[in-house]
Amino acid sequence: MVNYFSSDFKLAILGGGQLGKMMLYETRKYDIETLVLDPSSEAPCRISSNYFEQGDLMDYETVLNFGRKADVVTFEIEGVNVEALKQLESEGKKTFPSAATLEKIQNKAVQKKFYKEKKIPTADFKVFSDLSALQNAVQKKEVEIPFVWKSATGGYDGKGVSVIKKAEDLKELSEGECIAERLVPFKNELAVIVARTPSGEVRTYPVVEMEFHPTANQVEYVICPARIEEKVAEKARAIAKQVSEAFEHVGLLAVEMFQTEEDDILVNEVAPRPHNSGHYSIEASYTNQFEQHIRAILDLPLGNTDSKVGGIMVNLVGDPDHEGEVVYENIEKIMEMNGVTPHIYGKKITRPFRKMGHVTIVDKDIARARKIAEKVKNSIKVISKK
Amino acid sequence: MVNYFSSDFKLAILGGGQLGKMMLYETRKYDIETLVLDPSSEAPCRISSNYFEQGDLMDYETVLNFGRKADVVTFEIEGVNVEALKQLESEGKKTFPSAATLEKIQNKAVQKKFYKEKKIPTADFKVFSDLSALQNAVQKKEVEIPFVWKSATGGYDGKGVSVIKKAEDLKELSEGECIAERLVPFKNELAVIVARTPSGEVRTYPVVEMEFHPTANQVEYVICPARIEEKVAEKARAIAKQVSEAFEHVGLLAVEMFQTEEDDILVNEVAPRPHNSGHYSIEASYTNQFEQHIRAILDLPLGNTDSKVGGIMVNLVGDPDHEGEVVYENIEKIMEMNGVTPHIYGKKITRPFRKMGHVTIVDKDIARARKIAEKVKNSIKVISKK
Repeated sequence: MVNYFSSDFKLAILGGGQLGKMMLYETRKYDIETLVLDPSSEAPCRISSNYFEQGDLMDYETVLNFGRKADVVTFEIEGVNVEALKQLESEGKKTFPSAATLEKIQNKAVQKKFYKEKKIPTADFKVFSDLSALQNAVQKKEVEIPFVWKSATGGYDGKGVSVIKKAEDLKELSEGECIAERLVPFKNELAVIVARTPSGEVRTYPVVEMEFHPTANQVEYVICPARIEEKVAEKARAIAKQVSEAFEHVGLLAVEMFQTEEDDILVNEVAPRPHNSGHYSIEASYTNQFEQHIRAILDLPLGNTDSKVGGIMVNLVGDPDHEGEVVYENIEKIMEMNGVTPHIYGKKITRPFRKMGHVTIVDKDIARARKIAEKVKNSIKVISKK
Repeated sequence: MVNYFSSDFKLAILGGGQLGKMMLYETRKYDIETLVLDPSSEAPCRISSNYFEQGDLMDYETVLNFGRKADVVTFEIEGVNVEALKQLESEGKKTFPSAATLEKIQNKAVQKKFYKEKKIPTADFKVFSDLSALQNAVQKKEVEIPFVWKSATGGYDGKGVSVIKKAEDLKELSEGECIAERLVPFKNELAVIVARTPSGEVRTYPVVEMEFHPTANQVEYVICPARIEEKVAEKARAIAKQVSEAFEHVGLLAVEMFQTEEDDILVNEVAPRPHNSGHYSIEASYTNQFEQHIRAILDLPLGNTDSKVGGIMVNLVGDPDHEGEVVYENIEKIMEMNGVTPHIYGKKITRPFRKMGHVTIVDKDIARARKIAEKVKNSIKVISKK
């Protein structure tokens, strides 16, 4: 076995945001040497990495030269130069997840076709090379309103996705390759994180549930375990495993899914990295998602994915009416509550809806955790200095 | 309230070893800016601190100038210049734990007299200004063999403590102020960690038990919760709380105790900082000891000290037959076991008995955890590269 611990082994991480930051807690715990590349000089990973480089993640030469300094290359964001990863792989560098997987996932049209080819259940869809092709199809009634429009590339955190309810909505869309997806009525939005090693060991985490605000169309709570029937949970985990194996994925894969009215599971999309839906695992799981990602890409044995206790995650996003130097109002109030842990990502400036951190609430009783989560949500505010 | 999170608030930590390293996981989680001072350029805290300075912790000017750069000063090792802390306090700098507390604890004779004065149960003792005074007292039978000799200053990890079983043993002792303590037969060695804030909020952790090797006189496992009667556990926690309040301690205080044959609790000694006996808390507790220390010294609300699951800690010490570049043999074997997390402190060189890391084993069933802990102990070896 390679000697990763307190050795001269080097792990390169492309991207230095909050996901990388939480990954670094684990590389520090194992004393694994890390190199991080990020375009921002104030990236959260500037601290805790052994070596930090400021540079463009989409630039071929930058990524190639950076990757060459390490023994294994991974990423915490999908927006990295895939050609550079391919070149690194051809030079014998271990790149996990692989360039081929990332390339499929970066393009939602390719991703959806891949599911179809691999017989992975997903909502029906059609691919269009550009917006005018989609507009023509709508005129000819080949695509029926309502449907879900998704940009093939560049979508993130709900950007690049629109529900088209009437013809005029088409005018708001951006140009470029896109897909039109059937609007599936669903009971629940679920997610399962899968870890897979180069040797093929696979483990799935319990199913989590996204609870939406009753009126605003926004996820309020990520809840683990999901409050669904056991047989539905088993199906979701089995499908997530199937997706990971279809990609021959190495590392973490977060599989987002819909539970339909008929209790079918449809894969929505995947992220080839630690994921917001797995943040609860830091406090709740025997092995948190960041440690599991490190174990997976280094071909170490995977850890137990079970939970010690129930976990709920609440995102801390910038208040819509504030911009400027951040203040976490009432943070001391939520710290008084049982089982509450705030995570502050380290961004100095808050902006409306900017992801500034998250809060985990753990409890042996998930219903009690849910009540505390609501108190957290109603107490803390991410505002700017007066 | 002071704005600690993603602000320009600065916390100074004196000492940059493994305790500081684990504290930095928490300052990173809260995005609290840190400055660390340590004599070694390869200190584990060099990474993850916002600012690292190499310097002598016992040097008055070094500590004073370093402390002046921060808003609050704490330490992760007792061996720091107390006069510099006093000066910082007189300049209005918050120093937690306080210089007065540290001064009492640094000298075991002073510590023991303090217990007596405060009516805290502890083994009977006598103080001697130097070794010859003790030798005279033994000759005059004012001190009866067997007894426990303790150097008043400089003891650490079992150094500076000797059980005197016969007159010749006296010759092996080092010079200087010392105490002779009654040798108390005990059933168990226990410890309780107490957290206390400047506002006076106090919380105790559950009692942990040190399980010794059946023949070698060495702690093998730290087990939480201790396998003792509930009423003994309650007494131990009450006494630990009493000690913390007697010191008007701020921060963490680890209170080491004996459970006598008669189920009395005697305080052995204390450490005014996160402690080896609390490492289990990272994986097992709702609030781990390092987060709790930060909460305490910043006068934030204290977190829940209960455990989510049972926890056992095994120290990883250098194999007696190895010295050189470290290799953690069979680490991948222990990572396969359920609920096992290795912590690697980041020391490149192993030496006989050097503390190189620890392993935590958590499980809902403490008896099952104990079995896994034994497998861990029998598998992993800290050796040097061939």
